Amino acid sequence: MTIARTIEDIIACLTHVSRVQDLAGRDAFPEFDAELVRPIIEEAGKFASEILAPINQSGDVEGARLVDGDVISAKGFREAYAAFQESGWMSLSAPEIYGGQGLPRTLAMAVMELLQGANMSFALCPMLSFGAIDALLEHGTDQQKADYLPKLISGEWTGTMNLTEPQAGSDVGALKTKAEPSGDGSYVLTGQKTYITWGDHDLTSNIIHLVLARLPDAPAGSRGISLFLCPKYLLDQSGEPGKRNRVSCSGLEHKLGIHASPTCVMQFDGAKAFMIGEPNKGLAAMFTMMNSARLHVGVQGVSQAESAFQTARLFASERTQGRRVGIEGPAPIITHPDVQNMLLKMRACTMAARAICYACAKANDEAVSAADNTSRVEASWREDILTPIAKAWSTDIGVEMASLGIQVHGGMGFMSEALASQIYRDVRIAPIYEGTNGIQAMDLLSRKLPMADGQAIKSILAEFSRIAKATTHNSDDRSQQIANNLEDALSALQKATDWLMDHNRDAADTTLFGATAYLNLLARVAGVGLLANGALTASEDDPDFSNELVDIAFILSQLDLTGIAGLVSRIKLGRDISWDRRMELLY
Amino acid sequence: MTIARTIEDIIACLTHVSRVQDLAGRDAFPEFDAELVRPIIEEAGKFASEILAPINQSGDVEGARLVDGDVISAKGFREAYAAFQESGWMSLSAPEIYGGQGLPRTLAMAVMELLQGANMSFALCPMLSFGAIDALLEHGTDQQKADYLPKLISGEWTGTMNLTEPQAGSDVGALKTKAEPSGDGSYVLTGQKTYITWGDHDLTSNIIHLVLARLPDAPAGSRGISLFLCPKYLLDQSGEPGKRNRVSCSGLEHKLGIHASPTCVMQFDGAKAFMIGEPNKGLAAMFTMMNSARLHVGVQGVSQAESAFQTARLFASERTQGRRVGIEGPAPIITHPDVQNMLLKMRACTMAARAICYACAKANDEAVSAADNTSRVEASWREDILTPIAKAWSTDIGVEMASLGIQVHGGMGFMSEALASQIYRDVRIAPIYEGTNGIQAMDLLSRKLPMADGQAIKSILAEFSRIAKATTHNSDDRSQQIANNLEDALSALQKATDWLMDHNRDAADTTLFGATAYLNLLARVAGVGLLANGALTASEDDPDFSNELVDIAFILSQLDLTGIAGLVSRIKLGRDISWDRRMELLY
Repeated sequence: MTIARTIEDIIACLTHVSRVQDLAGRDAFPEFDAELVRPIIEEAGKFASEILAPINQSGDVEGARLVDGDVISAKGFREAYAAFQESGWMSLSAPEIYGGQGLPRTLAMAVMELLQGANMSFALCPMLSFGAIDALLEHGTDQQKADYLPKLISGEWTGTMNLTEPQAGSDVGALKTKAEPSGDGSYVLTGQKTYITWGDHDLTSNIIHLVLARLPDAPAGSRGISLFLCPKYLLDQSGEPGKRNRVSCSGLEHKLGIHASPTCVMQFDGAKAFMIGEPNKGLAAMFTMMNSARLHVGVQGVSQAESAFQTARLFASERTQGRRVGIEGPAPIITHPDVQNMLLKMRACTMAARAICYACAKANDEAVSAADNTSRVEASWREDILTPIAKAWSTDIGVEMASLGIQVHGGMGFMSEALASQIYRDVRIAPIYEGTNGIQAMDLLSRKLPMADGQAIKSILAEFSRIAKATTHNSDDRSQQIANNLEDALSALQKATDWLMDHNRDAADTTLFGATAYLNLLARVAGVGLLANGALTASEDDPDFSNELVDIAFILSQLDLTGIAGLVSRIKLGRDISWDRRMELLY
Repeated sequence: MTIARTIEDIIACLTHVSRVQDLAGRDAFPEFDAELVRPIIEEAGKFASEILAPINQSGDVEGARLVDGDVISAKGFREAYAAFQESGWMSLSAPEIYGGQGLPRTLAMAVMELLQGANMSFALCPMLSFGAIDALLEHGTDQQKADYLPKLISGEWTGTMNLTEPQAGSDVGALKTKAEPSGDGSYVLTGQKTYITWGDHDLTSNIIHLVLARLPDAPAGSRGISLFLCPKYLLDQSGEPGKRNRVSCSGLEHKLGIHASPTCVMQFDGAKAFMIGEPNKGLAAMFTMMNSARLHVGVQGVSQAESAFQTARLFASERTQGRRVGIEGPAPIITHPDVQNMLLKMRACTMAARAICYACAKANDEAVSAADNTSRVEASWREDILTPIAKAWSTDIGVEMASLGIQVHGGMGFMSEALASQIYRDVRIAPIYEGTNGIQAMDLLSRKLPMADGQAIKSILAEFSRIAKATTHNSDDRSQQIANNLEDALSALQKATDWLMDHNRDAADTTLFGATAYLNLLARVAGVGLLANGALTASEDDPDFSNELVDIAFILSQLDLTGIAGLVSRIKLGRDISWDRRMELLY
């Protein structure tokens, strides 16, 4: 059972790295108690391994199908969704007033990691619902909330995000779907949306589409888009699904992975819809959905890295090749140093990515629950800065670890029946959707660094500096080395940050060329810093885990932080290769 | 036509980086003339793009099939193979005495790069034949050569490599297939081989299997294996395929990629076979095949990186998203800095990997053709050291660039119909077969570093040191920076090499933990060094290309060489994390 190891690492990360127990007793989380962490995570692990994992590979082979205009999910998915809804996993972090359980988002994210890890295709369906719930909570009217939230939160219905159109991907402002007022306060939607995850399915009795569209008099670009709610079945007077709305799935994409997650072309042929929030302010509402989805996708990256690691670790423990002194007969390949290196890298990177994602979720929890305003504001900054890092770095790690996971398997990893090969295909979408990782890096540079006049990034760097200093107080060699690596890295990071802030506005062609390298540098510092901090906080309560964290943080910092000067030259590379020269070298 | 760009980069690499023209006029290559380079590469590019590329995606969808015990190739593959044979691509570098064209291997490798890039599944078939030809040339009797070489070299028949068994992958010494003398000088083979590429097919009238097996009285392990030749059809008295031999394909693997390349389970049920070379010396013969195959697989990595680059470059030139000052309407995404960064990294890494692979092939050509013995010995060292680097680094680059290629496409790259997604699946096998990349790194550390008492690696490092010094003579800033980066890297590399040589024998658990990191460091130095050297040699004849090479080498060295201290800490990491501790962290 590989899930047992995952469960322990998740609980340890929640407890010692994220310190989710700090949130107990706060008004925002009335039902939360630190004692709940273990039973909830164990129960989620049980659900993931017993209900979702068994239909992961069969779902991949079968895929979702479009039959006479309806999407039919793969065998076992309806039953699994019914069990999911029954178990209440959807409602963990939702407000109690709408039927939620009022628990911290950090805990809900950890649960989602387990579900995503067992079956990414399945877990995408609730993932999109979370985004719809967040958008409604923040921007919906009281009536809209009352009409839709309880059933989205219970999981009785699901939600979708309808943003992309063929000509409008990263450039969402280019979308063309029209929303015309029908006179009764509702709107009529006409247009086509593509790449709509779980846009149609047979799991629930209704599907609530959140749709970006353009009013007749809307300004061009992203300042002219509005958000609409468009149910598959319009509600009758009792609030139950009634008349079928004029929205349907006209096609399914054939994809590299996540075959059991239907990726739909959606047609809005005069569909009735209701505006959420203000006219032409759809972008803000979209970002509410997006921020939720971005962190979820980051967690997805962690989940696939973890699955790849556990799958590879198990294989390497069982597969024998070659000999080793002290072992009779052929030796398990996990005893060979090169295989150990791959597996330890997988464990270290996965733990770092998890620490970043949970820190982002915790920042969100802190932003709504911390006692004083300063703490709430700083937490909100932290969430804003960590979101693109959690999304981009964790999904890059997911892809990289999936590839390493195949490598550990050798030839058997390349076989279709190997879970490792499915993970490699499934996870490849994660760096792309909900804003490509390049878009995340641009978001970090262009929107997040200038936040609060640079105070936001400054407070994050100060926090990691504090961790580095605290780590030097540990007298062991490894902690010293971690602290040295962190301090060197932070100094490089500070220089890179200053340089970017100085040139961001007037030389975007130069700075944006290094945006991804900057995001990576910050992610590495954050990953090592959070694990080192975890080692410090765990040192009294759980010295064994603290020692493990020291070693893991040490490995990661020796792998990733000692070459830090190199990353700075990558960040500044745009200064040396002009835009014109780039085009020459590419044509 | 993206092939036109590939052709020009290949010709420029052959001419300025590899200086294949140095080989003209040597006895070993009587027909070679520098004027042949362009027409041969252009013709191969035409063949690749017009004959092989059109059946690449259809072959992936259809795959090879096993019907009533015979493998049926995908639609169009028989016709393409007939055209391949007709064109004489198989015989380029084979000796004239057996019908070959006696051209340098470097040129033949460049041709294979084009064929691999257009259709990896197809090109695997001749790739395996090359290995069989090499083994026969080096270890076969005159009669065996006369019987089999002409038709393998003409492409009328194909060859295979039958090494792996379920329990014997990386550990080839664990194989169990039996060879019993039949009394007439031939042998009878009994056993099962797995993962046999193009083990059966309908492209040619015969298939010549080269099979590793164990004689009845053979010692255990790798010192007890012998090599046998086992034709699908035994030759009749006129040397034509006659009676069907007792070897057959009993199953095809379902795989992540290279669907059109049949990966066979082969049954030897008392098949008649002939020994190649000496009893129990099969390992040496296997390494002859393997060395050829390893370089070919490295070239395959280059070819897929190049295809991924060209596919992404074309997509980014056509796909529009967002705006850019100076461009009316939506801008092609290639104008956005982050996309430029991904594409330039793809071009730089691909060119570096190509330079390494061609340098390895050139070393082989030099080893058989250089005027004096010292040059031949040094060339042979260079080939031995570059082979694992060419194989491992180029295939890692292939996988990494395939993933970046998808990223450039955004959502469209994740669609099954995207060539980018096929490349990502196909290339993933390259770091695994013909010796996993971990095995390559171990080969480099354990066999290649100690060669000639360390003289071999010393002469390679001296060569790069010479290049770094020569590069400092260029006064431009970029060349200076390249030289600085190279010198820093070489100094780190020298330290790492010394440390490994000092500890290799008594602390393999420690040194092998860093084997892959060492291979990567050497590969980066070699890549930048070879491109920088190319810039120097091209500076008079082709100043534009020389300038391009300076920029490419500069980009690569800023991306990959400035963090070099980090790689040294990676190499030595095994010193700090004991074997026991690794096992604890993984259990």
